[in-house]
Amino acid sequence: MRIVRTIAELRAALAEARGAGAAGSGAAGSGATGSGSGSAGSGSAGSGAGASSADAAPRRVGMVPTMGALHEGHLSLVRAARAENDTVVLTIFVNPTQFDEAADLAAYPRQEERDAALAAGAGVDLIFAPEPAEMYPSGFATTVRVSGALAETLEGAARGAAHFDGVATVVSKLLLAALPDSAYFGLKDAQQLLVVRRMVADLGIPTRIVACPTSRDPDGLARSSRNVRLSAETRSRALAIPQALEAAIDAVGSGERDAGRLVRRAEATLAAAGLAVEYVAIVHPETLETVHRVDTTALLAIAARAGEVRLIDNAILQRANPAHPDEEE
Amino acid sequence: MRIVRTIAELRAALAEARGAGAAGSGAAGSGATGSGSGSAGSGSAGSGAGASSADAAPRRVGMVPTMGALHEGHLSLVRAARAENDTVVLTIFVNPTQFDEAADLAAYPRQEERDAALAAGAGVDLIFAPEPAEMYPSGFATTVRVSGALAETLEGAARGAAHFDGVATVVSKLLLAALPDSAYFGLKDAQQLLVVRRMVADLGIPTRIVACPTSRDPDGLARSSRNVRLSAETRSRALAIPQALEAAIDAVGSGERDAGRLVRRAEATLAAAGLAVEYVAIVHPETLETVHRVDTTALLAIAARAGEVRLIDNAILQRANPAHPDEEE
Repeated sequence: MRIVRTIAELRAALAEARGAGAAGSGAAGSGATGSGSGSAGSGSAGSGAGASSADAAPRRVGMVPTMGALHEGHLSLVRAARAENDTVVLTIFVNPTQFDEAADLAAYPRQEERDAALAAGAGVDLIFAPEPAEMYPSGFATTVRVSGALAETLEGAARGAAHFDGVATVVSKLLLAALPDSAYFGLKDAQQLLVVRRMVADLGIPTRIVACPTSRDPDGLARSSRNVRLSAETRSRALAIPQALEAAIDAVGSGERDAGRLVRRAEATLAAAGLAVEYVAIVHPETLETVHRVDTTALLAIAARAGEVRLIDNAILQRANPAHPDEEE
Repeated sequence: MRIVRTIAELRAALAEARGAGAAGSGAAGSGATGSGSGSAGSGSAGSGAGASSADAAPRRVGMVPTMGALHEGHLSLVRAARAENDTVVLTIFVNPTQFDEAADLAAYPRQEERDAALAAGAGVDLIFAPEPAEMYPSGFATTVRVSGALAETLEGAARGAAHFDGVATVVSKLLLAALPDSAYFGLKDAQQLLVVRRMVADLGIPTRIVACPTSRDPDGLARSSRNVRLSAETRSRALAIPQALEAAIDAVGSGERDAGRLVRRAEATLAAAGLAVEYVAIVHPETLETVHRVDTTALLAIAARAGEVRLIDNAILQRANPAHPDEEE
């Protein structure tokens, strides 16, 4: 596994992985025909020499963008990428432009050596870990912005419009630097996923965006790099978040349709545990517009602070039998 | 020469032109990534043994983005692209989001059949002429914005911030649709060129941006699609624009350094011809910040209306002997 710091190094490494460097041929498939005997002799099916293996299929690149401080949630994204691609790139960049609070940025955990060992163990081929000056050199002046409810509600409202500007801009840069076939995002950051999907579709970035399930600790807490900052006591209080989500799922399963009641019940659960609620919202799972009744599916999104640590989580609320949306409870 | 209407058709045609189609790679992404790595500088042509085409060098794609109503200025861009590339794509899209005035948008000339004949004659291989709904489908919500003097002065101030938002967004979409090795822009739209260069560098779009000289009619008027709307009388008055530029070039050649005097003289020339001046500005040729003295080089930019027709033009003012910037005139 290699670690590269610049976009130029990343592109060179990926060109090699894709076979463009090794065969010196422009077309991915054409190198294979000429070098079949060579790769039979070398007998190596590794990712480097494999560029000239007798495989005419395009060599796929998968990307897992992260801010480092890797945990099992990130590793589940890496495994999803590993299963579908020839080369897996993990990016580690604590993007300053998506933090609204300097203290939150400063406190964000950084542990690159440990991250590299975890990434290598999970099958990452290449880590792209740029410095801020590589991503935002002097004179940088471009912002990619997604407008509307998708970016302006929930996290956009709580953290300010600049948050998703920062996300959309950095993700567009990371995708354009590597031009991966697929990029993998966790559903814990459901709104981020929707904003990225919208941006990628709107600009026509030729990458497939793959959503992966939220990874949870056995006690139900969604895995997050911020969890390391929880004390035993605040962590125990934070469990009210998955508990509130589960209770809402159960309530909808039992026939509750009223979003206002579901929200108030979740807020009460969080407050009882001593969490400071930032928002509890039930919204359309694609547009993020507020919904008043859970007639088919809806997204329940929570942001709350346990002590100093800001946590978010969400769940899909699914009506058990949505065949009769006009039915009254 | 083919005309395509959708991004999918454009990508398929370019994948074929690049030779990726022969290898049977279906994904748009893989064709695109091939181009990305090529233009990232890995294009070291190797032996070429086994390449399906006879040519191992990457097949270069050049793009000329236009709003149609082609004239000799556009054709000079096509010729520049033709000289450096294997495949030349011309795009024709009257981008509604960069017009601040509905009347200007409605009056913008559209003549696709004539454009296609001119393009074919100049050596274009492929025209991409999408409908607005292909570029901005329902739900489109993403804007690419360049901030600062580059986008906010001159045309940005006169036409509103949305103008260069529209330009940066549509150009990023066009470049990402084709991922050309090079794209060709005219220096008549000097500020547009700088905004596009900034956006391409900031996002890391793997395309080289090539500036081409302003094309002029024999009488000096900069070629523009809007010129067809000039009457004989307004056209004659519009000649004051290149005359004002020439006079400023001569004045600086003769030792004039004072930007204020140069601006006032140009404004007087335009007013005397009955033109309605929108701005006359002397600015740094890269940052577009106002300069007060022409000590090395500066950009003189003019926007004025001849009757109903809004025209822009510019020239580089170059001090004859810039070796002694402290010298007083």
